[in-house]
Amino acid sequence: MNKKTVIPQNQPDLVADWDTLFRVFIRPEGQASRATLIKYMDRILYGLNNFLKTHVGITEEVSLKELSKNFTDTIISDNPKRKLADVITCLIKEIAPYAVNVASPYFVGHMTSAIPFFMVHLKTIIAALNQNVVKLETSKVVSVIEKQVIAKIHRMIYEQSEDFYQKHVQNTDSTLGVFVEGGTTANLTAMWAARNAKFPPKDGFKGIESEGIVAAYNAYDIERCVILVSRLGHYSLRKSIGILGIGNQNVIPLKTDQNNRVDIEALKQTITRLKKENSKTCILAIIGIAGATETGTVDPLEKLAEISVAHNTHFHVDAAWGGPTLFSKKYNYLLKGIKLADSVTVDGHKQFYMPMSCGMLYLKNPKTLDVIAYHANYVNRRGAVDLGIKTLSGSREANSLILDCALKIMGAKGYALLIDHGIETAAAFAKEIKKRKLFELVTPPVLNILTYRVCPPSIQKKLEKANEEKRRKINENLNIVNRKLQQIQREAGHSFVSRTTLVQDNNQDDTIVVLRSVIMNPMTTLAILNEVLDEQEEIFKTQLKDLLG
Amino acid sequence: MNKKTVIPQNQPDLVADWDTLFRVFIRPEGQASRATLIKYMDRILYGLNNFLKTHVGITEEVSLKELSKNFTDTIISDNPKRKLADVITCLIKEIAPYAVNVASPYFVGHMTSAIPFFMVHLKTIIAALNQNVVKLETSKVVSVIEKQVIAKIHRMIYEQSEDFYQKHVQNTDSTLGVFVEGGTTANLTAMWAARNAKFPPKDGFKGIESEGIVAAYNAYDIERCVILVSRLGHYSLRKSIGILGIGNQNVIPLKTDQNNRVDIEALKQTITRLKKENSKTCILAIIGIAGATETGTVDPLEKLAEISVAHNTHFHVDAAWGGPTLFSKKYNYLLKGIKLADSVTVDGHKQFYMPMSCGMLYLKNPKTLDVIAYHANYVNRRGAVDLGIKTLSGSREANSLILDCALKIMGAKGYALLIDHGIETAAAFAKEIKKRKLFELVTPPVLNILTYRVCPPSIQKKLEKANEEKRRKINENLNIVNRKLQQIQREAGHSFVSRTTLVQDNNQDDTIVVLRSVIMNPMTTLAILNEVLDEQEEIFKTQLKDLLG
Repeated sequence: MNKKTVIPQNQPDLVADWDTLFRVFIRPEGQASRATLIKYMDRILYGLNNFLKTHVGITEEVSLKELSKNFTDTIISDNPKRKLADVITCLIKEIAPYAVNVASPYFVGHMTSAIPFFMVHLKTIIAALNQNVVKLETSKVVSVIEKQVIAKIHRMIYEQSEDFYQKHVQNTDSTLGVFVEGGTTANLTAMWAARNAKFPPKDGFKGIESEGIVAAYNAYDIERCVILVSRLGHYSLRKSIGILGIGNQNVIPLKTDQNNRVDIEALKQTITRLKKENSKTCILAIIGIAGATETGTVDPLEKLAEISVAHNTHFHVDAAWGGPTLFSKKYNYLLKGIKLADSVTVDGHKQFYMPMSCGMLYLKNPKTLDVIAYHANYVNRRGAVDLGIKTLSGSREANSLILDCALKIMGAKGYALLIDHGIETAAAFAKEIKKRKLFELVTPPVLNILTYRVCPPSIQKKLEKANEEKRRKINENLNIVNRKLQQIQREAGHSFVSRTTLVQDNNQDDTIVVLRSVIMNPMTTLAILNEVLDEQEEIFKTQLKDLLG
Repeated sequence: MNKKTVIPQNQPDLVADWDTLFRVFIRPEGQASRATLIKYMDRILYGLNNFLKTHVGITEEVSLKELSKNFTDTIISDNPKRKLADVITCLIKEIAPYAVNVASPYFVGHMTSAIPFFMVHLKTIIAALNQNVVKLETSKVVSVIEKQVIAKIHRMIYEQSEDFYQKHVQNTDSTLGVFVEGGTTANLTAMWAARNAKFPPKDGFKGIESEGIVAAYNAYDIERCVILVSRLGHYSLRKSIGILGIGNQNVIPLKTDQNNRVDIEALKQTITRLKKENSKTCILAIIGIAGATETGTVDPLEKLAEISVAHNTHFHVDAAWGGPTLFSKKYNYLLKGIKLADSVTVDGHKQFYMPMSCGMLYLKNPKTLDVIAYHANYVNRRGAVDLGIKTLSGSREANSLILDCALKIMGAKGYALLIDHGIETAAAFAKEIKKRKLFELVTPPVLNILTYRVCPPSIQKKLEKANEEKRRKINENLNIVNRKLQQIQREAGHSFVSRTTLVQDNNQDDTIVVLRSVIMNPMTTLAILNEVLDEQEEIFKTQLKDLLG
């Protein structure tokens, strides 16, 4: 325990004492400290604002390595190293410029974007209140508000009757949904509930949660559990099934059709094959995607629901991305069938434009999560309002309050404007890509995500005529070019699209590297997207053309 | 999909249109909007401050039921319902008063408390930057800072050499720790890694993560996995083992000694018994508690480490509560042996005084989490700096930046002052409880948590003489009194202690209800705690005395 402390070069006049401590603990009350506080907040909100206007800021990995050399001191100094004002100044002047400006309208590469500035205010309030929603004793009214806002989103998804909501909205025994850390935890929670529901307690068996998988399979004479999802399913599904002890190889990736939707025939055939291979195989869940991470595509949810019912299996929809499309009266038809899902994942920090980290899981049946309930003596006692009883996590912040306020400030129509803008701008962008000869549109947008790649007309012609071997060779060359293109553009720091690797024609050995655009920032216009394409054309012409021979 | 929308009574002049949307998306830039923003922030920080000074605010459950009747509208209005300013005013005037004032020095019942006001500022910055630490492309420098601050805390726990930290601090292949949502996720991650390490891939077996538990047990000829922890272990351990498919009945609760530390002899005997019962039992992990949730006690970590080594099993320490005791040169000896742990859970939102939700897991070996790594094509590619590769969650906010700044502002000594205050105030409080005849100190404080109960001298005498049956009867009466006492005090809203149920003499059938105090607020003085006791004496005398006959 005798830690050797080396005091680094810090401001020598700073000492940790009770005076300092009181100053930082008690919110400043005098006029002078009030002024100081306002100055800080001004610096935070405007200093950052200036940064957010300037650059995208993803530069070379080399410079990152250089940068990381400045962050190798691992000793915590005994006395304070910096005053609050200096820390904030440093954050704004030295750290923020090396962060990524996800709020730039030129940042169209990932599902992280600008958020309305009031979200920041709301997050501040949540932090100041410091409620812990795990239990009523540390949250009170916030638990009640959380139940209400969950019912609101549940209603948007499931459209049950007013009677249904009156019965369940504030019912302590009902769980219409839960707030979680993010889409991964939401998917994990859904699969956890599906697993436990398949192996409930019965004579001589206390249930899978208590006795574990080996005993459960024995009790129910099962040898294998699988979940079925399009090969475009999010990797958190594999992770979930791995964590749950089922084995992630039992996530069976299904073929997709030409529109990147799960192939229903392939699903049916897979079920038949699995049952034939081993009649003791249990289909734990069928999963539909509403907004695939890579392509933004939506599975035929109604058909999936039908098959799930026929096989008596849990139907989960991963709408982490696409869920808020329901706000749009123009485009909500794209998610037709979502209300048939037993559970639905939606992310708050994606198209609800909330700050990181906020995920949600919604349940058709208010009793579904009963199978994952945990209690403790000092909190979460049986029958209590304590929301922590049916969540994976324990202590947790009151993000529900942010969503509740956001719904009031934006209205459904406000969110619909954002959704419509994304979908329509993506469609216009796709047209533009098609118009430009250098590019090939690989996956057309359904929602607001599309992929494309550099593929000059001469190469396109060659591809059309080539045999499989030759085609693969050409694609390998194109992959190099597209990978480099994305990297050069990213390092230039003016704009950002991401890249991913897509399987072609469901053939795992035939992959192509594509550029991926996610249009969620309302400031991202077609003009800006044209600039992004212009820059890519320029990069290709000046730096990459020769690579294609 | 044709949602029937009923527009509720809202401000009729508010419409969702692009003008409104632009106003809420772009941070205000004109002088006028700047002034508005400052006014809001002022309201947030001072309106809340006024609330935070007034009351504890946990009132009757009846009033909560009444309150919940106001939160049953489940329709999202089409147009905005309220302007930002009104929403904020409503939060401050109508919501906050019904929240729980966890910042009050009279709130000594749970592990949630006042936080330094700068934490709120830092949270605001994090929200404004909106970085997503899952991948470098949405976080950049923040990923580097996260690695650094993790190394700092790792160094405080594990005290490795400067060479060790120079090698690992910015090494993309090394994981000294991870930020997670909270203690539950940290414990789950630790158990996940321990599980996977026990069943790695080998000839003809692709590893437990891939093939699942049934195949893993077969491959390694194992029939049961257990984890061993004191009966005071946090309920998240049962939850973790349940989620992981091992079965939560395989969390074996161990007897404790008179000081509420795990009984080492009982541990040894349990291991012998388990192996004897079934030689195919695998001890997955032994867990030591550094700050038990209910009693604040610390297990003999060195001895646990020794036994873990002897049995070649993962040694995890749950220091969610007690971890920051290491800051105190006076009391860090209480955690002696923690550096021998394979993994250590620490919570940021507990004694690091950070806002909800922030947990961490630290690993002695920088490779430990390799067994839980997941990759995806569009992010977290192999070899990348992307921090999401080895975390349970995907997208996640940059809480690490808050901790980094807090360490600079507070210094180790600043945190030590808080720790020392808690431990010493709890000790003084215990003395005071002993002095007062009405109370019985049930678990004396080791750190800053203690439990006690109302037990008048006459009853104490009766208990001493009573046989088991009679003793149980008397305790049942006392339990009723203490439960009511806690409830009446909570509903009065002046101060708050929590209650829990403790097992006596390791006999599950012999439980007593106790009052539980957690002293972490630096403003909580002995004088305040005496007021809490005074109030309890008064409540007993005027309302509960007769219940004891």
